[in-house]
Amino acid sequence: MPPKLHSRQLLTIICEADLERQLVTELHLLGVRGHTITDARGQGAHGDRDALWPTSANIRIEVLCETPVLDAVLNILEESYFKSYGLVAFVSEVAVLRAEKF
Amino acid sequence: MPPKLHSRQLLTIICEADLERQLVTELHLLGVRGHTITDARGQGAHGDRDALWPTSANIRIEVLCETPVLDAVLNILEESYFKSYGLVAFVSEVAVLRAEKF
Amino acid sequence: MPPKLHSRQLLTIICEADLERQLVTELHLLGVRGHTITDARGQGAHGDRDALWPTSANIRIEVLCETPVLDAVLNILEESYFKSYGLVAFVSEVAVLRAEKF
Repeated sequence: MPPKLHSRQLLTIICEADLERQLVTELHLLGVRGHTITDARGQGAHGDRDALWPTSANIRIEVLCETPVLDAVLNILEESYFKSYGLVAFVSEVAVLRAEKF
Repeated sequence: MPPKLHSRQLLTIICEADLERQLVTELHLLGVRGHTITDARGQGAHGDRDALWPTSANIRIEVLCETPVLDAVLNILEESYFKSYGLVAFVSEVAVLRAEKF
Repeated sequence: MPPKLHSRQLLTIICEADLERQLVTELHLLGVRGHTITDARGQGAHGDRDALWPTSANIRIEVLCETPVLDAVLNILEESYFKSYGLVAFVSEVAVLRAEKF
């Protein structure tokens, strides 16, 4: 990794579009300093009680953060969202420029 | 990786929007259990016989899966799509919550 | 990594939509051979002099390349864009099919 790049966690959340305002507010309360949203559509596992994606619009939220903030966000997703909402979350390690922003 | 996270493959496919229905059907037949699509635009290598992106609309398909399903999908892409379509596919390893969904 | 897959760098840039034409031209001059753009929206760190995201529309640019091209692009972003624009850039290593395209 070149010296100008710094390791951060990239968290991607895919969920119902209706959750945008609530989830973004929660993310920033937990210490997230920036987010990016793209509109999406999709389909999840069929026949599950909590089918992952309804037919309504979805969004894809990306967040760059350090591990402590990531852990706090993952805990909230597990405790407060997974039971009630079709929501997918995955994490990858990325290298960022201007790491002081995240 | 925290205990609640599990390793999965994230496959991203970028292709012509017209391929959406056909490709999504194929993915699910191969064992993919969910997908996310965002509309995209772009441009590929010029002067290639199979120029990567036409001027028409593109889509970006994301799929989380385990290695056997990934391998099956990559084989189909190579055998049935790459010769006829401008299509880009790349894979990264990610850590997912609720891994039993994928 | 299966033999058909080859390691490449995936660079993601999130910036103001107004930068699209200029930045894409610059990327291709630096050796980038293809790019994908999705429309996005978001919010960056508040209170910073160079607030990351204005209220206007954003775009998310993805580029697959090898390390020398990546380094050239990162240098230009640092030298010519970061002071004037709210811009986020992050890199991850991915495995691509048809690596000769990138």
